[in-house]
Amino acid sequence: MKLKLDIMIEEEQQRMTMELEKYLKSLSMPKRLQESTMYSVNAGGKRLRPLLMKLAAKGLNGNEERVYPAALALEMVHTYSLIHDDLPAMDDDMYRRGQLTNHKQFDEATAILAGDGLLTNSFHVITSNSQYTDEEKVFLIHRLSKASGLEGMVAGQLMDMEAEDKQVAIEELENIHLLKTGMLLTYALEIGAYLAGASTEIISKITELGKYVGLIFQIQDDILDVIGDQELLGKTVGSDMENNKTTYPSLLGLDGAIEHKNRYVKKAKGIIESVHLKETELDLIIDYLSNRKY
Amino acid sequence: MKLKLDIMIEEEQQRMTMELEKYLKSLSMPKRLQESTMYSVNAGGKRLRPLLMKLAAKGLNGNEERVYPAALALEMVHTYSLIHDDLPAMDDDMYRRGQLTNHKQFDEATAILAGDGLLTNSFHVITSNSQYTDEEKVFLIHRLSKASGLEGMVAGQLMDMEAEDKQVAIEELENIHLLKTGMLLTYALEIGAYLAGASTEIISKITELGKYVGLIFQIQDDILDVIGDQELLGKTVGSDMENNKTTYPSLLGLDGAIEHKNRYVKKAKGIIESVHLKETELDLIIDYLSNRKY
Repeated sequence: MKLKLDIMIEEEQQRMTMELEKYLKSLSMPKRLQESTMYSVNAGGKRLRPLLMKLAAKGLNGNEERVYPAALALEMVHTYSLIHDDLPAMDDDMYRRGQLTNHKQFDEATAILAGDGLLTNSFHVITSNSQYTDEEKVFLIHRLSKASGLEGMVAGQLMDMEAEDKQVAIEELENIHLLKTGMLLTYALEIGAYLAGASTEIISKITELGKYVGLIFQIQDDILDVIGDQELLGKTVGSDMENNKTTYPSLLGLDGAIEHKNRYVKKAKGIIESVHLKETELDLIIDYLSNRKY
Repeated sequence: MKLKLDIMIEEEQQRMTMELEKYLKSLSMPKRLQESTMYSVNAGGKRLRPLLMKLAAKGLNGNEERVYPAALALEMVHTYSLIHDDLPAMDDDMYRRGQLTNHKQFDEATAILAGDGLLTNSFHVITSNSQYTDEEKVFLIHRLSKASGLEGMVAGQLMDMEAEDKQVAIEELENIHLLKTGMLLTYALEIGAYLAGASTEIISKITELGKYVGLIFQIQDDILDVIGDQELLGKTVGSDMENNKTTYPSLLGLDGAIEHKNRYVKKAKGIIESVHLKETELDLIIDYLSNRKY
């Protein structure tokens, strides 16, 4: 079963990269814009969001293939957010996943525009697809724009930057994470359940699960910044401390952060059990996220 | 009739500023993000796109009120594009409409995020509105994301930057303008006609009109950069020449540019006559755009 998850993750990575490439190649755009967007979608990445969407749909007996356009749109939004987050005015990162960040490989203007374009076209992907009814398209866009917009991811990124160079309380830290990464992860699960035709009650539980997934992911991120392997991670270790960022380990200590994470793992598994998804891949992925090395 | 247009323009400016403010105030977001987005939507502006949308709907006997959510979304996309275009990595502008650009008033990171957020939430505005059917919402978003995305405005901005410091032929110059500004202006007219329930034939003519409106607007922009009044314009005159940009006057001379513009005015009026909009405000606005001083 563990092996099965590994294979599934790898297959999902290949599939999503293929979907992203196919879509971008289908567009008529200036060469440099094509190269820049293609560069970032080809930069690998865990494809965690598409995977979560697919596993939620699969676990709830939905048609997995139906999630692809929505998952593609979501991964485009995620990719845009990484390109913009890496910009000099934001996190000023030189490397991402072991290769130069978009603005280092190209230039800042191109990176800004590539991000803007990926974001904008994510909505076009959804409206262009004939698999979804109009009602589904509207729901997908309504939730995606909420999760990633002024009340979601964008707010989280701003709050994250404002929190730099000062210590914030754990409640504020969690709120930032819920906005900055949690809402898109939650979206992945929510839409997987929605497209599987799950009941409102199930969708609402799956949505709650999304919050824990986001927090587990983030706590592990913080932990890896302390004890991770730089080569495996493809990015500099210790940058949080260097940037004087509040993290779970800085607030709770390393052991405290691990304990905190384990509490969320338990809560997540409780929800999974309550919606009868125990011993599905969705169950396994919680351990995977909690124990990941990169 | 001229006076009537002036009053209408002013009313539209007030109405759109009110709609933008009302919407942004309804959102729960970090203070700095609220201030930054509010700053840019309050920076005035001609509100040309909402006005065109409304006049197209009105001219074709549609219900003017129905255009507002779509016009609000469009103006948000336009505002985002100005914030990002002004960034140091892009056009590096210090002033816009006589006040500091967003990144000068706040900072670059905030300006990038304010732009990202306005863009994202423009789609949320459309899906949130109960005036439109799902079919209409999908159409509005489908066309808006096309006009402003990787095959539209974003492509135009990249091409515009690539064309800096070199002379380009008039065909390329027009192509850049059609992408960079033409597609959103066309969208305004197209959606006005669509929401008025116009026939496919009429919508297609109105869409063609959008191209001429965009080019007339741009030629006049170039002309004003040569002979405009700095105070009226609220921005530096002569910056195109200083930046060695290809413009209509640089390619055709000032008189040639004016002649070129007049040819488009004639074509635009031909279309207006063909769809029986002569002597409506849509007709008058062509002269207004062609002769504007700021």
